[in-house]
Amino acid sequence: MQSPSDKLQFTAQLLTLFPEMFPGPLGQSLAGKGLKDGLWALKTLDIRDFSRDKHRSVDDTPAGGGAGMVIRADVLGDAIDAALSEAKDDWPLVYMSPRGRQFTQQTAKRWQKAGGVTILCGRFEGVDERVLSARDVEEISLGDFVLSGGEPAAIAMLDSVIRLLPGVMGAAETLNEESFTSGLLEYPHYTRPAVWEGLEIPEVLSSGHHGKIAEWRLKMSEELTRIRRPDLWSTYVLAQKQKD
Amino acid sequence: MQSPSDKLQFTAQLLTLFPEMFPGPLGQSLAGKGLKDGLWALKTLDIRDFSRDKHRSVDDTPAGGGAGMVIRADVLGDAIDAALSEAKDDWPLVYMSPRGRQFTQQTAKRWQKAGGVTILCGRFEGVDERVLSARDVEEISLGDFVLSGGEPAAIAMLDSVIRLLPGVMGAAETLNEESFTSGLLEYPHYTRPAVWEGLEIPEVLSSGHHGKIAEWRLKMSEELTRIRRPDLWSTYVLAQKQKD
Repeated sequence: MQSPSDKLQFTAQLLTLFPEMFPGPLGQSLAGKGLKDGLWALKTLDIRDFSRDKHRSVDDTPAGGGAGMVIRADVLGDAIDAALSEAKDDWPLVYMSPRGRQFTQQTAKRWQKAGGVTILCGRFEGVDERVLSARDVEEISLGDFVLSGGEPAAIAMLDSVIRLLPGVMGAAETLNEESFTSGLLEYPHYTRPAVWEGLEIPEVLSSGHHGKIAEWRLKMSEELTRIRRPDLWSTYVLAQKQKD
Repeated sequence: MQSPSDKLQFTAQLLTLFPEMFPGPLGQSLAGKGLKDGLWALKTLDIRDFSRDKHRSVDDTPAGGGAGMVIRADVLGDAIDAALSEAKDDWPLVYMSPRGRQFTQQTAKRWQKAGGVTILCGRFEGVDERVLSARDVEEISLGDFVLSGGEPAAIAMLDSVIRLLPGVMGAAETLNEESFTSGLLEYPHYTRPAVWEGLEIPEVLSSGHHGKIAEWRLKMSEELTRIRRPDLWSTYVLAQKQKD
């Protein structure tokens, strides 16, 4: 019989001022089942627990003036050190920040392989920069937009990692990564009914001819990528040329 | 006295197979307070309620074969129509998909101005393409990575919209959008203590000289952007030249 720790494939450690935001949507559906089954684990550390005063305050006004509040280096440094003492050496230590490197499918795979991640979620204006450099924290961005805090970003990123863990996705929800493994966007999908509002399913898909179907799907993927994502398309064309 | 409807500034309609994932983290902190105070509203429609059989099934095998399941056009078409009958004309109708246009701060502002959005969250392999074209659904992507479903993406995007609503952010959490309004990444922040682990706050920030502080912050923003985001940097340099 397997002990729970044998099944454990990934641990997410969250440093946050809102531990009650977790697991949130990660507690439902496939990720939720994986959590219950012990395929992955979630630990939250409340940054407020590392406050140095009786008001449990964690932030102060920005040096040099300006609006907003900044999370203090001393409080956050202690919180990070507590998290690191629980983390394995190869787990990335990251800070959710729009200044960071963009999270991609490659990042998700890297975290999955590492077996865990420690994520610092900010709120307010930001965090004292000295902590980020002193603790060598990697800044990771969900995209070019601003959130009220790092928590929703962490949830989205963790979802993409958790679905990669063996056993989390069933046969009906196969790992469908055409988009970012082949370097192309996904081709269009169709299912029953054969006719809907007068619209038919493309004929080739009912042909039963596997070769032609695969060819059509590739063509559609290529068309979509060329039109919608010239950036991915250039990379793909270059890679194809190098193969030939 | 204001009636609740006077205060309402934004409505998020979610089409999902997991309505219990909402509001999730959006029910906490500032977004949660805004929801409670009626500054924004959340409606979920369970796609399963539009199933046409007693098993409440919504999906079927992909035409042309392959792994995974595809959400049916008839079921989803009805669900979308029900949502649209509750929506205002100018609310965007969007589908969370890695094939879509990347969500940015501009998208967040556009949705906020529209006063609402109808978001279709997929699960399984995908949805029948005919629905997307027949209902003119805009595909929007959180980034170049794959999620287990659209829900975590919708939560992150909505968070970025909700924080823009007047009254949601307090004075202590000012709208800090330097990153994507000036076109530059944010400068580093510091706060007390003045010395932490032997590391000092940059001297200029304690000078009290507002002009010099602003100059230093701009220089830091420019440096960070030039090094980390050559794409944003080129656009910024071009815009500066056109100003001169």
